[in-house]
Amino acid sequence: MTLSYDPRTGTPNGEVADTTTAEVRAAVRAAAAAAPEVATTPPAVRRDWLVAVAEALEAGTDELVALAEAETALGVTRLTGEVQRAAGQLRFYGDVAAEGSFLGAAIDTTGPHLARTRVPLGPVAVFGASNFPLGFGVLGNDTASAIAAGCPVVIKAHPAHPLLSERLASLARTALAAAGAPDGVLALVAGQQAGVDLVRAPEIAAVGFTGSQAGGLALWRIANERAVVIPVFAEMGTVNPVVVTRAAAPRMAEIAAGLVDSFTLGSGQFCTKPGLLLAPRGAQAAQEVAKALSSTRPEPVMLTAAIAAAVRSGIDELVAAGGRVVEVVEPGAGAGWSAPAAVIEVAADRLRPGSRVLEECFGAVVVVAEYDGPAERDAVLDRLQGALAASLVTDGPDDPEGAALAQRVGGQVGRVVVDDWPTGVASTWAQHHGGPWPATSAPAATSVGAGALDRFVRPVTFQDVPDAWLPAPVQAVNPWRVPRRVDGVLEVPGVTR
Amino acid sequence: MTLSYDPRTGTPNGEVADTTTAEVRAAVRAAAAAAPEVATTPPAVRRDWLVAVAEALEAGTDELVALAEAETALGVTRLTGEVQRAAGQLRFYGDVAAEGSFLGAAIDTTGPHLARTRVPLGPVAVFGASNFPLGFGVLGNDTASAIAAGCPVVIKAHPAHPLLSERLASLARTALAAAGAPDGVLALVAGQQAGVDLVRAPEIAAVGFTGSQAGGLALWRIANERAVVIPVFAEMGTVNPVVVTRAAAPRMAEIAAGLVDSFTLGSGQFCTKPGLLLAPRGAQAAQEVAKALSSTRPEPVMLTAAIAAAVRSGIDELVAAGGRVVEVVEPGAGAGWSAPAAVIEVAADRLRPGSRVLEECFGAVVVVAEYDGPAERDAVLDRLQGALAASLVTDGPDDPEGAALAQRVGGQVGRVVVDDWPTGVASTWAQHHGGPWPATSAPAATSVGAGALDRFVRPVTFQDVPDAWLPAPVQAVNPWRVPRRVDGVLEVPGVTR
Repeated sequence: MTLSYDPRTGTPNGEVADTTTAEVRAAVRAAAAAAPEVATTPPAVRRDWLVAVAEALEAGTDELVALAEAETALGVTRLTGEVQRAAGQLRFYGDVAAEGSFLGAAIDTTGPHLARTRVPLGPVAVFGASNFPLGFGVLGNDTASAIAAGCPVVIKAHPAHPLLSERLASLARTALAAAGAPDGVLALVAGQQAGVDLVRAPEIAAVGFTGSQAGGLALWRIANERAVVIPVFAEMGTVNPVVVTRAAAPRMAEIAAGLVDSFTLGSGQFCTKPGLLLAPRGAQAAQEVAKALSSTRPEPVMLTAAIAAAVRSGIDELVAAGGRVVEVVEPGAGAGWSAPAAVIEVAADRLRPGSRVLEECFGAVVVVAEYDGPAERDAVLDRLQGALAASLVTDGPDDPEGAALAQRVGGQVGRVVVDDWPTGVASTWAQHHGGPWPATSAPAATSVGAGALDRFVRPVTFQDVPDAWLPAPVQAVNPWRVPRRVDGVLEVPGVTR
Repeated sequence: MTLSYDPRTGTPNGEVADTTTAEVRAAVRAAAAAAPEVATTPPAVRRDWLVAVAEALEAGTDELVALAEAETALGVTRLTGEVQRAAGQLRFYGDVAAEGSFLGAAIDTTGPHLARTRVPLGPVAVFGASNFPLGFGVLGNDTASAIAAGCPVVIKAHPAHPLLSERLASLARTALAAAGAPDGVLALVAGQQAGVDLVRAPEIAAVGFTGSQAGGLALWRIANERAVVIPVFAEMGTVNPVVVTRAAAPRMAEIAAGLVDSFTLGSGQFCTKPGLLLAPRGAQAAQEVAKALSSTRPEPVMLTAAIAAAVRSGIDELVAAGGRVVEVVEPGAGAGWSAPAAVIEVAADRLRPGSRVLEECFGAVVVVAEYDGPAERDAVLDRLQGALAASLVTDGPDDPEGAALAQRVGGQVGRVVVDDWPTGVASTWAQHHGGPWPATSAPAATSVGAGALDRFVRPVTFQDVPDAWLPAPVQAVNPWRVPRRVDGVLEVPGVTR
């Protein structure tokens, strides 16, 4: 049984029953039974399915926001925006599927006739995030991109918002059925054991996960112990660094205000939260950030009791690792899952592999360090874990340190942001939300943006196979009108050479 | 120390010293030092490097073939062709790099300016195959595609051909230096411990492997135990099935002759060797294959003493698992690493998960089973391991079973071949040489064909980064003239809309 709580008060909203092992098996079998139909349905039709889900989300906005607010305390404005975001994502991934480049279709005619297309992997297990109950939840990026790519999904309800999870799944199943999708294209399971059963189920072909390193790595290990090992696309938490260049340092007060807005956003519960500020020696960085935090006085309410407790213990651990609390804002009322916001200063030489300082502290907590010069700054950067994103705060295009810094951090993260904050990840064609281990378990994969579909397909080449037996994307008439490479040359439908 | 043997006689050719742990560290450090230069060198220049290596291979053909023949006994004709193949691959991967699609460049201009390009992962460890000393060896597909993608390589010499490995590395290093490539772009290490040291080295960013399941999974486990886990692209051996349809069964004698040619090719030492023939009940399949084998009387000489021993023990294990030896051709002279060729018949119901019959028997050994009808045939197919390739032997485009069979086996393998044999894998744009676990450790990856480069790069998105700081593929002027997706629309240089 999973209990739902109101984070503002700590009182229960209700409960959701655990899915039994037998029920998980039934859900997975239904997904496997639906898989061939989902895989061979034209992507433009799968887009229609996703649009139907998007419309159902939009139609249910008020109810969904109220439910989400009661379970997450993320605020009505933010949650309303997130419903719109989730609906937009569903449409976007449908468009990406219909465009067809993700199939990587290619035909060689000069030797044996080779026709390559990507095929959907089969049923995908989705473990959504705690912190984006809509954008990265039951109907978030993983679910939308998996269905767009042609895979049924079996989703694990998140214990931080089990009632919302159930409602989202029910709403989507109704919309999908009305749009003509097969039963089995989407199912929900609940409970920790159900999640384990899901990853162990032989029919499951891949796992999408968004959350903590501990959670993601646990699923990755289970998947690696299967008879048939399957890919786990885990997007996990790391410390996203912000580097202030020497030329930008005079603007430290303004930078500090921006940083506080970014690291306290959503009570600091963003996987792209800037967790470490590196500023030149003498910039008074910690003092300025403390001042800015002190003046905004956020009152973080965390998603779960465990997360709230982890904020406090995380601050203690950072202090034990050599950090100094420069500012801490204790929650006023202190009810429910309230937690402090804090600025911790550390000496740059404390930023060493194995130190707690290099690990994520989920919540409205930031670590600030000053570096003596480029050599120490680069040495610190080299010691950081691979991360989802890094921000550079510069003096603009003429900043003499900018180009080299952009290249350096580009080698360590999935996204480099200049003169803006890393929080905020749009689902677009050129987006990448991933990064080197342990930011993700699969450094070439993205959980946001057009590339998200690529996780759930694999290529197959058909050699000398009669045209009528080929999958649609590589049949001679190109019935799905997908871009294809023919004898090495890209051919885009509607574009003349 | 690695001893080189002549497989025809079992006498030593010479020896190669093991690389020490310190020497491995030096090689890896040199690769890491070269990595930024290799990564930012225009792909067209990296193509020039690879062309220089191809020319050196061609110029050294006679010497290389003699050396390879002395260590592998694969025959001068085959090995001469393999030098040409390796040279062609080096040029092909250079062309793929220069074309630039592998970078996946994309630019969004409507929100924040997002510019995504793939960046090379860094130094790649390459473990080449025993069975293709040139095509999949020191200068084979993995090395060529990694350098093309912008990654230095550190290659483990194969113990089945250590002297050839040394000669190839030396020849390539000279050619690369003359072509202007940085020192550190290619190095060789030898010895089992050196291989382990290599995968554990923090600077190594990915592993390419071709060989047995035992070998590939051992490296995969080592990589998974690192502090920073890295991707292992292991292309491993499995049983590649051949399915004869009912309509094709009357041609069984002709099919048997083709099968014997394919499964005895290179002494049965192909990862794409057809290892299992499934024919309709009554086709007299085992008898016909036995007759064809008996009339060709191959005399397999294996690459190593261990492989030769494994052929004999493999036949014994297949018999212990319920197989019946229908024909065995014992080697005439029996000198060196000679081994038998054999046809083993099993009842279809022996083909069950966990049975030895479903695992590869490297060498000139084929298993034959007859199925009662489509239901039993499909049940058997469902129980097979994921494989690199499957062949369908049909009665042509009008065969009523063809379309459904092509779709079914397409779900289980990396390449579906109709009315031809699976041995033979050209490096082209539409090729895929991979497959579901355990055919490979990464089902979306290919070790042959244009997609091979994709293994060694990962995307990075640059958000609001000044143009001059961006990597070349996403700078406004597109200096490398690569295909790019701008606001969702593919733009191919030289193609007008």
